[in-house]
Amino acid sequence: MREMVVVGAAETKFGRSESSYRELAVEAGRKAMADAGIDAGRVESLVLGSFSPGTFINQEHVAPLVASELGLDHVPSTRTENACASGATAVMTGLMQIAAGMHDVVLVVGVEKMTSTPIGEATSILAEAADWESEAKAGLTFPGVYALMARAYMHQYGKDRSMLDAVAVKAHGNGVGNPYAQFQKAITVEDVRGSMMIADPLNLYDCSPISDGAAAIVLTAKDVADQFARPGIPFLGFGQASDALALHERDNITSIPAAQIASQRAYKMAGIGPDDISIAEVHDCFTIAEIVATEDLGFFEPGTGGDAAISGKTGRDGTIPINPSGGLKAKGHPVGASGVGQIVESVFQLRGEAEGRQVDGVNYALTHNVGGSGATCVVTILGRGE
Amino acid sequence: MREMVVVGAAETKFGRSESSYRELAVEAGRKAMADAGIDAGRVESLVLGSFSPGTFINQEHVAPLVASELGLDHVPSTRTENACASGATAVMTGLMQIAAGMHDVVLVVGVEKMTSTPIGEATSILAEAADWESEAKAGLTFPGVYALMARAYMHQYGKDRSMLDAVAVKAHGNGVGNPYAQFQKAITVEDVRGSMMIADPLNLYDCSPISDGAAAIVLTAKDVADQFARPGIPFLGFGQASDALALHERDNITSIPAAQIASQRAYKMAGIGPDDISIAEVHDCFTIAEIVATEDLGFFEPGTGGDAAISGKTGRDGTIPINPSGGLKAKGHPVGASGVGQIVESVFQLRGEAEGRQVDGVNYALTHNVGGSGATCVVTILGRGE
Repeated sequence: MREMVVVGAAETKFGRSESSYRELAVEAGRKAMADAGIDAGRVESLVLGSFSPGTFINQEHVAPLVASELGLDHVPSTRTENACASGATAVMTGLMQIAAGMHDVVLVVGVEKMTSTPIGEATSILAEAADWESEAKAGLTFPGVYALMARAYMHQYGKDRSMLDAVAVKAHGNGVGNPYAQFQKAITVEDVRGSMMIADPLNLYDCSPISDGAAAIVLTAKDVADQFARPGIPFLGFGQASDALALHERDNITSIPAAQIASQRAYKMAGIGPDDISIAEVHDCFTIAEIVATEDLGFFEPGTGGDAAISGKTGRDGTIPINPSGGLKAKGHPVGASGVGQIVESVFQLRGEAEGRQVDGVNYALTHNVGGSGATCVVTILGRGE
Repeated sequence: MREMVVVGAAETKFGRSESSYRELAVEAGRKAMADAGIDAGRVESLVLGSFSPGTFINQEHVAPLVASELGLDHVPSTRTENACASGATAVMTGLMQIAAGMHDVVLVVGVEKMTSTPIGEATSILAEAADWESEAKAGLTFPGVYALMARAYMHQYGKDRSMLDAVAVKAHGNGVGNPYAQFQKAITVEDVRGSMMIADPLNLYDCSPISDGAAAIVLTAKDVADQFARPGIPFLGFGQASDALALHERDNITSIPAAQIASQRAYKMAGIGPDDISIAEVHDCFTIAEIVATEDLGFFEPGTGGDAAISGKTGRDGTIPINPSGGLKAKGHPVGASGVGQIVESVFQLRGEAEGRQVDGVNYALTHNVGGSGATCVVTILGRGE
């Protein structure tokens, strides 16, 4: 298989935006092309990751819409949807187009416009990523789904919510250093505990926000990467896996098998293991999700991820910094953009361009993008290149 | 690039079904695997083409849902959406996974469940494939969009609706021979002219129906194709292209540039031209669309496609049989399934298994799947194999 690299990366600020869906996608796409030093004529294909524009903004068929707004000339354009993993799924789809030798330059954009929808309605739309027939139709929305997972984890391992507090405080602390983050203000344990209960045991500060935003990368093959302005940041490994949508169809709900399998595939392809990873951008849609992720990815043993968060091992100066960007929790979660944004942040970190949030000595960055409660997971591993 | 082949093909009957979305997808997927002589354990990846399950049935994240219902074991699963070309886009995505060497066996399923939605609401949902800001928001739904194209064509070339009548009568006549077709009853010119006006000049019988249905193919590479029960039917060429969503952004509306470009790419890859094609399954969402398609694909000169239809050149015994299946018009148009269904029909014809609708001497079959009013087009060319 050809070796694939990122030669351009950019994102909009995540959060409540005055910009429309197409304006956000165009902003990120143009900035990524500018970063790569190319104009629209060099792009051979567009892959767009987006979760539910049909319900959020009454617009499907968004891939050719964004392609034409970007001035891409009749290129093949494809939208991928895999719930909150729509973005990383778009990246995987773009990687295959290059690996196949079909295209040399693929622009991948992830985008979502959510804040123009009333919050209750947005929560209902998000619930369409759960199993409608057995979960969402009965009112089980995602805060409830992850609350069930949190309760099961706390019961199984005898933990309390201190671990959740630690994840929230760390996330917001990291967001302070990220100009793209929705929340750039530090919070305390008291803030987390004092915030409104959403679905016991999850409070408001345990939940990622509703956000607008877009992120984009320019993908190419290593064999042509010297034609671009920026050095290629290589994909050393990637893996994707699926599972049943509904929680009740899983053997246990304190881990996510799709994440374990996807990461094992990515590690095997890269020829490295969890101990080699310098930083990880993981899918912390809720605080409990980050704790489970750090176990699924092999950074900590099952049942110990919460304690690791409390002890500071996942902080920016810890043994394995998790979500130096602030993560979905503080950076924001414009669904289709989130997975692409994880890769953008990883590229910035690997280039040493992450400014106030730069982690020292980043050699390998891992991204972990989850759809729903774990029915989709995509893991990628990027390296520094030459 | 590896040579890709179809080793399994199947579909449900299209039309109003008692089966749910997931039941339809599972039926088509299981039948395709059975046709290939494999069980679920052999499938390495699922690609699902579906237009708007989030609005039709409140269910997004449908790829892992269908994967798990089919018993596929944690395989990567990806949904593609490109309006009414979501199905062929899924096929393209699956082809890339094989061409890249990432997977050897990919199951592609196209599916839509539309009839549980009231007809007016379904038309609104379909309009989300047009440009919401400049078309759909103002009430321009797809019958209106294609009516504008029909009026422009009739004005530019001095034609009347006789050409539309000819397409409708042929489609329903072909549907009589297709057990998978929604409509299996012949109609007359008088029936077409006497049917309710939908959007002048298009009457009810100029429009494809609202349908439920699913279609599936098993894709593999020629280098491993001898492991399956059925001989591989090769993809000799394929092409995909995009354009602006809104009609007013096009230079003219009596042809579809994305279809011209996609077909030129497919012809070039296959090393053949329009004169070599034995049959074509084209995207006749409205009668005018088939006439324009036969010109865009190079079968007839611009402005002569209507006369060709009237003279019988596109009939089952004509010089280039168009839509021997009955097409979207009579076979039905369960949006995400339609593009995959075109390939299923082509496989049946190339194998000589199309029974009552079999065309003699089929060596090359072309499929043409369009999204919206032409913002997406995917063209594939299949051959007989060895």
